[in-house]
Amino acid sequence: MSDVLDLTRELIGRRSVTPEDAGCQALIAERLARMGFAIEHLRHGEVDNLWATHGGEGPTLVFLGHTDVVPSGPESAWRSSPFEPAVRDGRLYGRGAADMKGSVAAMVLALERFVTTHPQHAGRVALLLTSDEEGPTNLDGVRRVAETFRARGERLDWCVVGEPSSKERLGDLIRVGRRGSLSGTLTVRGVQGHVAYPEKAKNPIHAFAPALAELAATRWDAGNADFPPTSFQVSNLNAGTGATNVIPGALVALINFRYSTASTATDLRARTEAILDRHGLDWQLDWNLSGEPFLSPASGRLREAVLGVCRELCGVEPEQSTGGGTSDGRFIAPLGAEVVELGPVNATIHKVDECVAVADLERLPGLYQAVCERLLASRHAAPGSVRSLSPPGRRLG
Amino acid sequence: MSDVLDLTRELIGRRSVTPEDAGCQALIAERLARMGFAIEHLRHGEVDNLWATHGGEGPTLVFLGHTDVVPSGPESAWRSSPFEPAVRDGRLYGRGAADMKGSVAAMVLALERFVTTHPQHAGRVALLLTSDEEGPTNLDGVRRVAETFRARGERLDWCVVGEPSSKERLGDLIRVGRRGSLSGTLTVRGVQGHVAYPEKAKNPIHAFAPALAELAATRWDAGNADFPPTSFQVSNLNAGTGATNVIPGALVALINFRYSTASTATDLRARTEAILDRHGLDWQLDWNLSGEPFLSPASGRLREAVLGVCRELCGVEPEQSTGGGTSDGRFIAPLGAEVVELGPVNATIHKVDECVAVADLERLPGLYQAVCERLLASRHAAPGSVRSLSPPGRRLG
Repeated sequence: MSDVLDLTRELIGRRSVTPEDAGCQALIAERLARMGFAIEHLRHGEVDNLWATHGGEGPTLVFLGHTDVVPSGPESAWRSSPFEPAVRDGRLYGRGAADMKGSVAAMVLALERFVTTHPQHAGRVALLLTSDEEGPTNLDGVRRVAETFRARGERLDWCVVGEPSSKERLGDLIRVGRRGSLSGTLTVRGVQGHVAYPEKAKNPIHAFAPALAELAATRWDAGNADFPPTSFQVSNLNAGTGATNVIPGALVALINFRYSTASTATDLRARTEAILDRHGLDWQLDWNLSGEPFLSPASGRLREAVLGVCRELCGVEPEQSTGGGTSDGRFIAPLGAEVVELGPVNATIHKVDECVAVADLERLPGLYQAVCERLLASRHAAPGSVRSLSPPGRRLG
Repeated sequence: MSDVLDLTRELIGRRSVTPEDAGCQALIAERLARMGFAIEHLRHGEVDNLWATHGGEGPTLVFLGHTDVVPSGPESAWRSSPFEPAVRDGRLYGRGAADMKGSVAAMVLALERFVTTHPQHAGRVALLLTSDEEGPTNLDGVRRVAETFRARGERLDWCVVGEPSSKERLGDLIRVGRRGSLSGTLTVRGVQGHVAYPEKAKNPIHAFAPALAELAATRWDAGNADFPPTSFQVSNLNAGTGATNVIPGALVALINFRYSTASTATDLRARTEAILDRHGLDWQLDWNLSGEPFLSPASGRLREAVLGVCRELCGVEPEQSTGGGTSDGRFIAPLGAEVVELGPVNATIHKVDECVAVADLERLPGLYQAVCERLLASRHAAPGSVRSLSPPGRRLG
């Protein structure tokens, strides 16, 4: 059995830019099959998804990761080729080293070691991998797999996402939830005309201005103990024909909410539309809910297990954060699973010369294995309070 | 001597899309030289300008026109070729028929007839033509010629611009002034960042919104008896990288004031900048004053002459307007001349199948000639009240 560094190097060497998997999942499936895992390949469109499980009745702990990586950018800007792993000064360099081939390799090693040392473990351990996490839409990755799981009543209790969560030291931050992301394409219509005859035109820029000011100034909620307040941003705003003497006929704004469990998507939509109506605009808004917020309950078994592992094996008290963007955890949480994210330091992700400290990488399998042991080492393990408490705010429809 | 229809047809046949003159001015110069006019060609860059004068001491009446035309658009959309003049149903079709080769031909005919019937006329009659009126910048046309005139102390008292002023019937509207046009390119700077981390960014769209709302709602002035209120328009507004998860670092807005003599460009600039400052923006504004407002005084000799001609020869009471866009008159008025615009019906200008009614075209030389006769037929003519009264609001620095 190769160690985590070797496997990470093998994965980095495969040029798996989204949606390519480039053979990463086949390699892992072969290893896990040898350890007695049931293997299922769920290919959708151009996307490879792998579902590997070990064990039977009882609660399921799933490790969630992705084999795809973001593009390298100009390879000449890298000190060494992004797809040829290189160790320098105690760091492993290569695209995906931190996000998240290192985590994926660590999960594989952890699962191999866990089922070796606990062949009669409680419940079920599983690995879910996709090659469509870094793309713009994520349509054929975990989103689609989750639909399949929902349709066939697949039971998932705990989910550890391998996203690189740590800030400066391994384990110094875990994500116990994520904000939701609600986007919209807003069109405000006016009447095109000549700048010299404004009375014959209706300028949508002018018409939208007070509504925009109100949207930008609105306090959507105050957040709560787990989440910062909901934020609203206009990312793109475009109007005009290019000509300086023409009043444009329409304006298009791309808007986005990152929202806490203190609000719902339904409510944010309604409040936005009410503001547009109140200002008498001729508007159209095409909404896209790309992810609902999720939150691991404070008393969650998984959260406590991950916290304990970080304290014990990393010697740090992890920050319990719900910050940052979205993750594939947003598709698993609605199935009823408690989701926590733990991975290496994220300082270099998506950048040139992405890297992971070799020392961190070598400790990561032990962390994931310890989570397995805390939750499923004994046949008497049970999913605990998560399912029975079903705290408010954990799932939002 | 060919009549006005023939000359207009000759001019339309020359494909003089801005800045091309295509020989129009040479043709006219040759005709006027034969009538004893002094001819001066003032070529700047790619632009031809013609200055033709007849007479000596005393006040100067100048007819101002342009030989360039806007592009035809797809020629196949025209019923007959835009550069092959065609008469159908009493209308002469072709690019420039109304804007303004018909007026130019009429001015030439009027001047020829006037100096023939009044060889000893008072003062001076003149024709000023450019081939850079329809372009985006007008840098090398009448703007440059006016600089030359100013430098050499050229005296201009009255200026008739041949722009197609009439609405439905020839002479039913004359322009007795024009609004000024003040443009600006406004950049508002923020701090680029990720939509998920708004606290690390500063969204220039959000920052600008309240200032934009205030700019759009501001009543800049109430206008006056001659001008509608000053209007402010944002013609183009652009911000965003295209990506939906990036807060942009800057916003660019193109703004334009069409302003009355109730405001000055200096004041509008200062008030705009004060609003941007009051909202605490990091802004830059590159201003471009493309034309100051001008107004023929109510008692102006030229205005009265043109009104009288319209009443007598067209049988209408002309509307005395300051509406619409700008004209080359804005460069002549600051030299001290009273400027009035009179030309054919403008319904088809800049459109496919541009045309002028042949009956209107054939009356136009008579109108221009009558203006000459009212002002300069007698050696005793004097510029009258215009120069001596120098009413406020006539020239604005």
